[in-house]
Amino acid sequence: MGHGGNILKAAREKGIDPFHIHDFSANISPLGFPEGLRQVLNDTVRKLSIYPDPEYHELRKAMATYSVTDKERIIPGNGAAQIIHDAIRFINPGKTMLPVPTFSEYEAALRTTNSQITYFYNNPEQAFSLNETQLLHSMDESFDLLVLCNPNNPTGALLSREAIFRILNHCHKIGCQVMIDEAFMDFVEREEHYSMVPFIAEWKNLIIVRAFTKVFAIPGIRLGYGVYGSLEKAKIHADQMIPWSINTYAEAMKDFINTREAKDYLEEVREIIAYERKRLYQEIKQMENYHVFPSAVNFLLIQIKKTDKMTVKGLWNQLMEDGILIRDCSNFKGMPDDFFRIAVKNKEENQRFIDSLKKAHETILCDKRC
Amino acid sequence: MGHGGNILKAAREKGIDPFHIHDFSANISPLGFPEGLRQVLNDTVRKLSIYPDPEYHELRKAMATYSVTDKERIIPGNGAAQIIHDAIRFINPGKTMLPVPTFSEYEAALRTTNSQITYFYNNPEQAFSLNETQLLHSMDESFDLLVLCNPNNPTGALLSREAIFRILNHCHKIGCQVMIDEAFMDFVEREEHYSMVPFIAEWKNLIIVRAFTKVFAIPGIRLGYGVYGSLEKAKIHADQMIPWSINTYAEAMKDFINTREAKDYLEEVREIIAYERKRLYQEIKQMENYHVFPSAVNFLLIQIKKTDKMTVKGLWNQLMEDGILIRDCSNFKGMPDDFFRIAVKNKEENQRFIDSLKKAHETILCDKRC
Repeated sequence: MGHGGNILKAAREKGIDPFHIHDFSANISPLGFPEGLRQVLNDTVRKLSIYPDPEYHELRKAMATYSVTDKERIIPGNGAAQIIHDAIRFINPGKTMLPVPTFSEYEAALRTTNSQITYFYNNPEQAFSLNETQLLHSMDESFDLLVLCNPNNPTGALLSREAIFRILNHCHKIGCQVMIDEAFMDFVEREEHYSMVPFIAEWKNLIIVRAFTKVFAIPGIRLGYGVYGSLEKAKIHADQMIPWSINTYAEAMKDFINTREAKDYLEEVREIIAYERKRLYQEIKQMENYHVFPSAVNFLLIQIKKTDKMTVKGLWNQLMEDGILIRDCSNFKGMPDDFFRIAVKNKEENQRFIDSLKKAHETILCDKRC
Repeated sequence: MGHGGNILKAAREKGIDPFHIHDFSANISPLGFPEGLRQVLNDTVRKLSIYPDPEYHELRKAMATYSVTDKERIIPGNGAAQIIHDAIRFINPGKTMLPVPTFSEYEAALRTTNSQITYFYNNPEQAFSLNETQLLHSMDESFDLLVLCNPNNPTGALLSREAIFRILNHCHKIGCQVMIDEAFMDFVEREEHYSMVPFIAEWKNLIIVRAFTKVFAIPGIRLGYGVYGSLEKAKIHADQMIPWSINTYAEAMKDFINTREAKDYLEEVREIIAYERKRLYQEIKQMENYHVFPSAVNFLLIQIKKTDKMTVKGLWNQLMEDGILIRDCSNFKGMPDDFFRIAVKNKEENQRFIDSLKKAHETILCDKRC
């Protein structure tokens, strides 16, 4: 299954150095690696000959402080991907509701457990926003699990807290668990008005998935976590996990995530993302051949309007001539094939994208005409 | 489930600095972290903002070179633990044969798949060596999987290649898959006469598990791999794995494992282990209160002879007074409760262990008498 961020594959295909690629396909912080983290990681070398703490006490404590919740609710994972896969496996749902288009790993995980999947199709006319009234209308007692991504990848749509409360209430009544993947929540302005972590203790049927790798631009380190409403379910998850799943470098993030530098970094990321997203959005909105969707996060979903003149594959190839890698969204279930996604990066990079997009457009149209 | 190497827990319990503990409970190389690896890891920082290659082409190629086999047979894992758990999950055996005592993760993984488990008990009178004639006698067509650890943890017993060929032949006839965990094979003298990796292509029912973390003393990095006899089964495993399971630091091992330094290091490890194991064995053999078992690897299994005078728990506590951590083996299924395991370390450390063992013995006996 294809994902964004596979610059190595793109570099192999095009025969170029991966470090020369401007990666707009992976949704990570445009500020890059925080400097203070370098010291923490370099200090970690001396700990490599020791097995990581199998119970990850210190790491969980630091994550609980970061998230303002209880250590006992926290399960660290080898990236958010492990939490998604393991939580779904341990729930082992007979029947799952999955609003799409969304991140493909939910479906991949559900397939390994042979869960029956009902897809709820959000559509482009409503900017892929979730109509929770319709969703809940189609959910009865036969459902064991609902998976939501909030803000949603790849659409950027953000669910209000009120909508989530309605969903949780309904799911509680029908005996259905809810997994909300908040992997991109750190990028949201006024996150505190959207994340469900502050309410986790009130909902025994809720699991929230979070990630550190995106917001601190360190996908190579692999660190995510789950937050459980039910202490009992958290313990079941912890007991069944593969031991030593979190490597010592990822574990060392405990010494960084609650520092002043980390807090300042997060604030700066949110500011730059909000500003640059608006700028990118306005720029693309002015182009007649593209439709750009509103987004709450660090990526934008874009639709090509006149596909007789241009395909996503054609645009992908053309942009790669300038070393710009976008995310072709055609392999997202429920997504028409004229969509692509770009990450919001820093000013210089975003300008490069805009310039290349304009150029690519002219080149392709010229090729068609000439 | 308890494992060796949990020095953090021991340090917490005893209120001492984990870096002051002499860890004889974890079976890792006594030479410590290879120096050349430090440079490789420090260079890795600049790659952390890129997602690891989801197909791990370069890493698999390097592992294939290291193991002298085909890249397509190799599945890298987040430690050998992930390979064990995932391979068992993807095989999903209805009924499994498990010779014990052995490493507890096989059983932990089998429990998550609800496999029926038949235990084959090796016994101390035969130094826990596997009687393969008896084993095969009790294996009919109802078995889907046989799990072997060779050399076996915690006993140190090594199976001959002839015995394994008999086992594989029988299992092939009854349609049973065989997983052989060779996590400690790198420590074996004349490894090339024991590892089954050179024969992997001939056995479609065979999966071999290997680890890099023990022999290069880097358990914190998390890197193991599976080698599949069946290319088709290797592909099924790869397709079902959680994406980006191997972090970028572990992936960077590709730049180290086939270097001259790595080869020299491995040779030196094997030499020192062979020499020191013999010395430790002889020393302990001369003590009247202990029975030490023959071992092919970097650890020794020891039985306390007169348990009216001394228990493993009592000895554990006494040795911890000197900061020495041993592995109490009482939680290994099929292991009587008067056994413990020690890693073979360097000369100075091993002497420290011998001295402490003698002292502990006298202290405990004196306490009993006085």
